[in-house]
Amino acid sequence: MKVSVFRKEQFNSAHRLFNPEWSDEKNDRIFGKCNNPNFHGHNYELVVRLTGEVDTETGYVYDMKILSDIINEHIIDRFDHKNLNLDVKEFKNLNPTAENIVIVIYRILRDQIDSRYDLKIQLYETKRNFVEYPA
Amino acid sequence: MKVSVFRKEQFNSAHRLFNPEWSDEKNDRIFGKCNNPNFHGHNYELVVRLTGEVDTETGYVYDMKILSDIINEHIIDRFDHKNLNLDVKEFKNLNPTAENIVIVIYRILRDQIDSRYDLKIQLYETKRNFVEYPA
Amino acid sequence: MKVSVFRKEQFNSAHRLFNPEWSDEKNDRIFGKCNNPNFHGHNYELVVRLTGEVDTETGYVYDMKILSDIINEHIIDRFDHKNLNLDVKEFKNLNPTAENIVIVIYRILRDQIDSRYDLKIQLYETKRNFVEYPA
Amino acid sequence: MKVSVFRKEQFNSAHRLFNPEWSDEKNDRIFGKCNNPNFHGHNYELVVRLTGEVDTETGYVYDMKILSDIINEHIIDRFDHKNLNLDVKEFKNLNPTAENIVIVIYRILRDQIDSRYDLKIQLYETKRNFVEYPA
Amino acid sequence: MKVSVFRKEQFNSAHRLFNPEWSDEKNDRIFGKCNNPNFHGHNYELVVRLTGEVDTETGYVYDMKILSDIINEHIIDRFDHKNLNLDVKEFKNLNPTAENIVIVIYRILRDQIDSRYDLKIQLYETKRNFVEYPA
Amino acid sequence: MKVSVFRKEQFNSAHRLFNPEWSDEKNDRIFGKCNNPNFHGHNYELVVRLTGEVDTETGYVYDMKILSDIINEHIIDRFDHKNLNLDVKEFKNLNPTAENIVIVIYRILRDQIDSRYDLKIQLYETKRNFVEYPA
Repeated sequence: MKVSVFRKEQFNSAHRLFNPEWSDEKNDRIFGKCNNPNFHGHNYELVVRLTGEVDTETGYVYDMKILSDIINEHIIDRFDHKNLNLDVKEFKNLNPTAENIVIVIYRILRDQIDSRYDLKIQLYETKRNFVEYPA
Repeated sequence: MKVSVFRKEQFNSAHRLFNPEWSDEKNDRIFGKCNNPNFHGHNYELVVRLTGEVDTETGYVYDMKILSDIINEHIIDRFDHKNLNLDVKEFKNLNPTAENIVIVIYRILRDQIDSRYDLKIQLYETKRNFVEYPA
Repeated sequence: MKVSVFRKEQFNSAHRLFNPEWSDEKNDRIFGKCNNPNFHGHNYELVVRLTGEVDTETGYVYDMKILSDIINEHIIDRFDHKNLNLDVKEFKNLNPTAENIVIVIYRILRDQIDSRYDLKIQLYETKRNFVEYPA
Repeated sequence: MKVSVFRKEQFNSAHRLFNPEWSDEKNDRIFGKCNNPNFHGHNYELVVRLTGEVDTETGYVYDMKILSDIINEHIIDRFDHKNLNLDVKEFKNLNPTAENIVIVIYRILRDQIDSRYDLKIQLYETKRNFVEYPA
Repeated sequence: MKVSVFRKEQFNSAHRLFNPEWSDEKNDRIFGKCNNPNFHGHNYELVVRLTGEVDTETGYVYDMKILSDIINEHIIDRFDHKNLNLDVKEFKNLNPTAENIVIVIYRILRDQIDSRYDLKIQLYETKRNFVEYPA
Repeated sequence: MKVSVFRKEQFNSAHRLFNPEWSDEKNDRIFGKCNNPNFHGHNYELVVRLTGEVDTETGYVYDMKILSDIINEHIIDRFDHKNLNLDVKEFKNLNPTAENIVIVIYRILRDQIDSRYDLKIQLYETKRNFVEYPA
């Protein structure tokens, strides 16, 4: 009797997309306005999905308050009102595309959530562009 | 050529989370403000997903009007503007967490929908907390 | 150079609509399923609007963090995960319709916000039913 | 390290649901008001999901600008502000139910997207009725 | 103690924008793709706002069930799943722009709502284009 | 017969809130995490409201395509994927709070829109924090 539970959180960050091994021209051609060296930003919406058995005593798969606290301590406090390129160590050498951000968030949270729960992350960069990992 | 079709409905209910076999202290520690003995409530959003073959004569997997009627007769009429703990017999001895509610809804609808259709239920308790069954 | 600033918050409450001076029959006729004596509930969304001059030093009309703290201390902590009829003293003798709730919230917040700011409150009971005060 | 990327687009179309081999009575009985011979219409929301490996040089699964251009050229330009029954050749002999529209969109886009990417389409006819293909 | 109460409803219609006194070329230049002679369509969202005194016996400005019934009888039943140009008599000689639709809806509802209530209508043609009357 | 018409657009920007005449300590105390010197960012949603007479020939108050083009040329092209503090000249010496941004947008658009139309701007910094000018 496995149920998936979902918790949505939000963070507001600046970022810039570019590959330091490429010329400015190539970065502009591939990343366009996302390559602005002065950065731009987004309201990121994060949906964390845990799948597991329902505990018969609590009726919970996972306490949403505890899940929210984990997300806040390990993701929101480190990503919110930050510059992903400059302030978040995982992106010092990794381009902060939505794809790379969602993988980084997955790996951080995977270490915090017991392995008997399946974990999946959705990340909305805008209402029209979003990603999911694992696929 | 299987397609999934989704229908969204809503119901507004009161509930209280607690385990009658626990002390008040333990219920408060585990369920916090959700354990208010005077109840609180939610606008629940329910998404019913049926998966099946497209009928070549109608172009439908399932008539959405009939699906809506089934959901209204078997779920909305019984859950909407009700106290889940006091008014809905399935929760007389079952803690009405989102996880337990989604399983109850699945079982009720599973009996109403021909077995050649796969069935999956999503239930939003708030915009930030929701569940899915089967996972 | 007056600007309006808006802050949205949410609370989840149980309530029942009825007039204790009426017969059960009349309460049922007027309030229908909202008169369930066991209560039902909603995710209320609250939008607080303050209008005032922009402070030239801060660029703020009002610090949104302070406004959020005021709303949380005086409204959310008292209304969220509560039974409006039983737990909130303002509704002991006042029917907790959306109209009456929005007036009560206005009066509570009006006492907390300096009079040089105009104040207006929107309250969403559902996505389809909402109210505003003052009109 | 496969990630799914999603792009949402919109088109506004007229359509009519009916089976030309049936009598008017049967069409009315099955399709109800959707069988209005003068048509009705919708704001369709389309979510295109591609799943593939993250390119290590770009950090992209797929360039969202290119995906948006493909969707616009092959779907939006042909479906938006059109009458699906009269203006879109795929529906000349196919009832434009949400199920049939989502399959048609999938087939059109499948030809435009390299086969190493998995493709899935969600189509919202209204906020309460939507479909997904493949299921 | 005047409060505004709002009720949201929806209708799905086909329409075409054009001025029959103009040439095809001028209609195309002014109305672009909205001038498709085969029609296109929208999910219109309608928000009806009534402003009045709160009744001290009910706590209501207006019974939302009665307001919803009035909107459904006089607007939804006549506009939903209809072709506004062909099926709705008010638009036989009036271009069904959002501006003209919202004025027509206002006039129809103004006749149904006691004059002691102020009335205002918002109409969403899409999420990005909407209108309000009176301004 | 004045009607208001609304057009919603979006831009994604980085910004930092601070007053250069204050100490770092005071900037931190007043602006908190919004004072991050490396910037953070938002998906800003902009709603432009024009109020005017309905043109009897077109049925329009204002052509939404023209309004969208004006907003894109004068606001989106200058603000989107930009750092408001560093890339937008109006904020070189003005703190880019939501209040100041909405006033700047109003002034830019006021010069582009004929004075017979009233103009009002709403700006959403997040779903929970937004502003309107003139109030």
